[in-house]
Amino acid sequence: MRVCIRVAYDGSNYHGWQYQEGQSTIAGTLAEGILALTGKEVQLLGASRTDAGVHALDNVAVFDTDSSIPPERFCHALNTKLPDDIRVMSSYEVSDDFNPRFEAKEKTYEYRILSRDVCIPTRRLYVHYVPYLLDVSKMNQAAAFLVGEHDFTSFSSVHAQVNSFVRTIYSCGVTEDKGEIVVRVTGNGFLYNMVRIIAGTLLEVGRSKISPEDIPAIISAKDRSKAGVTLPPNGLVLKEIVYK
Amino acid sequence: MRVCIRVAYDGSNYHGWQYQEGQSTIAGTLAEGILALTGKEVQLLGASRTDAGVHALDNVAVFDTDSSIPPERFCHALNTKLPDDIRVMSSYEVSDDFNPRFEAKEKTYEYRILSRDVCIPTRRLYVHYVPYLLDVSKMNQAAAFLVGEHDFTSFSSVHAQVNSFVRTIYSCGVTEDKGEIVVRVTGNGFLYNMVRIIAGTLLEVGRSKISPEDIPAIISAKDRSKAGVTLPPNGLVLKEIVYK
Repeated sequence: MRVCIRVAYDGSNYHGWQYQEGQSTIAGTLAEGILALTGKEVQLLGASRTDAGVHALDNVAVFDTDSSIPPERFCHALNTKLPDDIRVMSSYEVSDDFNPRFEAKEKTYEYRILSRDVCIPTRRLYVHYVPYLLDVSKMNQAAAFLVGEHDFTSFSSVHAQVNSFVRTIYSCGVTEDKGEIVVRVTGNGFLYNMVRIIAGTLLEVGRSKISPEDIPAIISAKDRSKAGVTLPPNGLVLKEIVYK
Repeated sequence: MRVCIRVAYDGSNYHGWQYQEGQSTIAGTLAEGILALTGKEVQLLGASRTDAGVHALDNVAVFDTDSSIPPERFCHALNTKLPDDIRVMSSYEVSDDFNPRFEAKEKTYEYRILSRDVCIPTRRLYVHYVPYLLDVSKMNQAAAFLVGEHDFTSFSSVHAQVNSFVRTIYSCGVTEDKGEIVVRVTGNGFLYNMVRIIAGTLLEVGRSKISPEDIPAIISAKDRSKAGVTLPPNGLVLKEIVYK
């Protein structure tokens, strides 16, 4: 039986999703929990390999098990074996060939920026703090230029190892929520560091270093150096993954 | 010169506000920062001695200094000497006899409860999580009975050492904010653990163990055992202190 788990986590204390020898990771911690619960080692197949410090409300993973625990019960059973900064929100059976990475139809990320005189300590792990004002309206205008199918080489880490830099962004908008600026982006997939580079570029627009109308040229340059910096991981959260 | 600082902090990693030998505390950490900045040891006089794990957006403290740093500049100067879970939001000079505890006109606290099937990891340090549904409307009806001048013995820790248990609550309401239930209470002062006991009592109302109409009898009993439990500290935040 292949069980699918929808996982939320606070990434602050982890070296990212992907298993690494000798490091505390989300996938490694989940696999330890499943071992403690079922007595069997499993290989977790995840939808999104979030980086160290990145959070998730809904990452998705599958594992194969012959456990007698009903698939819907894995959620609460597994939570008893996990630290409280990782929670399985739901669990269910999927077909034996279901791959949460390749079958994801769309993913939504949010990047939060706190712009004020002094950072608020209780938000420090969940926002990127900047001490200057941002023009949210301009940021939102710039975001609209990212929507569509594009080669996003300019918005990808130079370390990305992929066959194609073409991705489709379905929506990208910038709003304010209780004093925090939220960059929300939905697409069919994202390149390595892509959302953090998008947020870094929109930040430059917000402080008038880049104008919204510059975005098409930045995209067509296919040159990482034309876009903004990669913002830190803590402002990023994987909000949702949608399947067919 | 007496300098007043308005302080925000994430209480998760501290043994509360009040200085304790060998423990990491908010007041102790602030005093170390002031020592590093001015070269002088100071006695901090705080407005509210928040417990271990309790957060603040606006606690207030004063200290006396002969530093040449202009009082308004202490804010940013001191932040360079503090860990990032404590921030001085503003600073200014006050009269030499200003006592932030006794001259506070009103204080506002919020207690946040997260009621859902599974806790959200990124909110775990800032809410009290409960796995059952709550009737927010009933909680709000009950809250209204707490408003006014009352003897709050039933809502005070039995360890409180005070001359009088009479306090005035100016407003008390329960609302929903993005899936979290927020108990917001403003008063002229609060007894030891009073807000956490109010929240614990309103929680019992929300799950129909106490009816809103029971609140006047719980107050008049002047008996701690009649009210609800003291909820954990992490859901509590000191929001604001108002002076004349």
